[in-house]
Amino acid sequence: MAAGDLAARILAGDVRAAARLMRDLDDRLPAAEAALRSLLPRTGHAYVVGLTGAPGAGKSSLTDRLIAHYRRAGKTVGVVAVDPTSPFTGGAILGDRIRMQDHALDEGVFIRSLGTRGHLGGLSRSTAELVQVMDAMGKDVVLVETVGVGQDEIEVASLAHTVVVVSVPGLGDDVQAIKAGVLEIADVFAVNKADRDGADRAVRDLQVMLELRRTVLGRPVDHDHDAAHRLHGTPAAAALPEGEWEPPIVRTVAVKDQGVEELARAVEAHRAFLERSGGLRAREVARARAGFVTVLRERLLAGALARLEAEMGHLDAVAARIAAREADPYQLAEELAARLAGPAEGTP
Amino acid sequence: MAAGDLAARILAGDVRAAARLMRDLDDRLPAAEAALRSLLPRTGHAYVVGLTGAPGAGKSSLTDRLIAHYRRAGKTVGVVAVDPTSPFTGGAILGDRIRMQDHALDEGVFIRSLGTRGHLGGLSRSTAELVQVMDAMGKDVVLVETVGVGQDEIEVASLAHTVVVVSVPGLGDDVQAIKAGVLEIADVFAVNKADRDGADRAVRDLQVMLELRRTVLGRPVDHDHDAAHRLHGTPAAAALPEGEWEPPIVRTVAVKDQGVEELARAVEAHRAFLERSGGLRAREVARARAGFVTVLRERLLAGALARLEAEMGHLDAVAARIAAREADPYQLAEELAARLAGPAEGTP
Repeated sequence: MAAGDLAARILAGDVRAAARLMRDLDDRLPAAEAALRSLLPRTGHAYVVGLTGAPGAGKSSLTDRLIAHYRRAGKTVGVVAVDPTSPFTGGAILGDRIRMQDHALDEGVFIRSLGTRGHLGGLSRSTAELVQVMDAMGKDVVLVETVGVGQDEIEVASLAHTVVVVSVPGLGDDVQAIKAGVLEIADVFAVNKADRDGADRAVRDLQVMLELRRTVLGRPVDHDHDAAHRLHGTPAAAALPEGEWEPPIVRTVAVKDQGVEELARAVEAHRAFLERSGGLRAREVARARAGFVTVLRERLLAGALARLEAEMGHLDAVAARIAAREADPYQLAEELAARLAGPAEGTP
Repeated sequence: MAAGDLAARILAGDVRAAARLMRDLDDRLPAAEAALRSLLPRTGHAYVVGLTGAPGAGKSSLTDRLIAHYRRAGKTVGVVAVDPTSPFTGGAILGDRIRMQDHALDEGVFIRSLGTRGHLGGLSRSTAELVQVMDAMGKDVVLVETVGVGQDEIEVASLAHTVVVVSVPGLGDDVQAIKAGVLEIADVFAVNKADRDGADRAVRDLQVMLELRRTVLGRPVDHDHDAAHRLHGTPAAAALPEGEWEPPIVRTVAVKDQGVEELARAVEAHRAFLERSGGLRAREVARARAGFVTVLRERLLAGALARLEAEMGHLDAVAARIAAREADPYQLAEELAARLAGPAEGTP
């Protein structure tokens, strides 16, 4: 099928065409990239919400409930699950307590998953592509569920307009689990399984971290006011100086469908804040920059490796020489970069 | 200081010179790279052990105990902690239960930490560089502690000769926490905090996963034999066909110093297996290949972005055009890659 046909079918709402394109993108077929390119001008409608957090925090259950919430509100939903253990991916080996089949027959919901394995930079690129296809399909909201709080997750989170960091009481040491990077990416905190012992502690730990940050930022803290807001899961933005967003802390019990409406309201409040402050456009530009750099990096490396194999031998043989300390990887990289900047030898 | 002087001082055992080089590498000073290059021929001595697992699993305590173990055995130890919440990094906001100061005055121990933030590919590159410097310093064992089990951690783990995956009972749903990728990178499993409720379950879950994998690999399972081995934390390698390594499961209670000797023995057994099977050389080549590709990718991208800014405008301006759907990132990347392959315009 020509790339234009596939793209046209996707824009016309053909779910199977979208699934086909996603598969082809995963297989890195050139025609798939052409189809994606022709979809790009039709993207920019979807609001992208990232959910990230440690394994076992209940992100999938929360995603499940958010889907239901948005469907009740009449919105169409796409889901990209970046986590091989997610029930969305079928990766759960023992048991699957999420009733994702509730959504399987709903045409307003489109779910795709990605493993976290693959080449460097591949994860954020693949996720970005799936989000773009879902955007082009006309999904109103795209939920991106990632596991963990590492560098990948931070990059994947950068695809989102609003990032929800999901924590859970009793994860050993909650504060240990919440890392410096998370403070920077979190727009909303959800303390899930909030009916468990330790929920108050988990909320307090987050409050302390946010207060520490505000102290660093040099802003006075209105303890009672903010604490009251946060304890009740109300977005605290209104209490803060214009132009700054304080991540609200929302308690949820996903499996009992508690706190999900509050969470959705917190996301909505953040969206309104971004639109008001110009932050939405800034996030779009950052996302475009990251996507472009990823594509560029991949193009350049592919070209250089082809040149390497043509001129210096197979990559494994070169690596064996480096491993034997017979070759200097920095020098090889320099030589190769320099050759690429000059006219090719042996190629027309 | 000239790069050669710095390298010579490091090879002579000057700890402050090593610390200085690591700082300079972090700041990406060109002289630092030159010094590192001159150290490379003197590397290849250290045995690298990676420890990875979810936040709160107690990796730092286990690392702490392993340091003590190796020191008792007369070995020098380097530690690279890739985790901003690790007590090694000073990143723990509330409380620090690890007495790392025990090692602070020990000249046989050298500890450095890295945050997990930074540019794509930067984490594994930086970690690899720290490992190389510690190797050149003559450390016998280098422990690399990473948090999480995402793609980054898998890449960082690929730096190690032996990868220990640390899990812990009661982390919500242990099997959910142990992801497909982990099975592929784990050479040894440690179930830490094994005096807690749920330890048997955690061990069993890992056994089930390993058995599933063996079934997939088409090998018959000798339940009683293997189970007995694993339940007692004995490396099961001897019970397996020649040429295959079955990750042993070791129970540890790091804070009570229990199981640490067994864990070290399991690491040693894996090392002996790698040496016997030729796997050690294969890992060295894979590590060299990954390192080279990372350096090459960085060089190429830096050159291309300089060219972009010279010819197409500032990256942010280009990204803004992409975000506004006025420019096609794929086309821009192609143009730029093509220009780099031809003679430069406007540069001599």
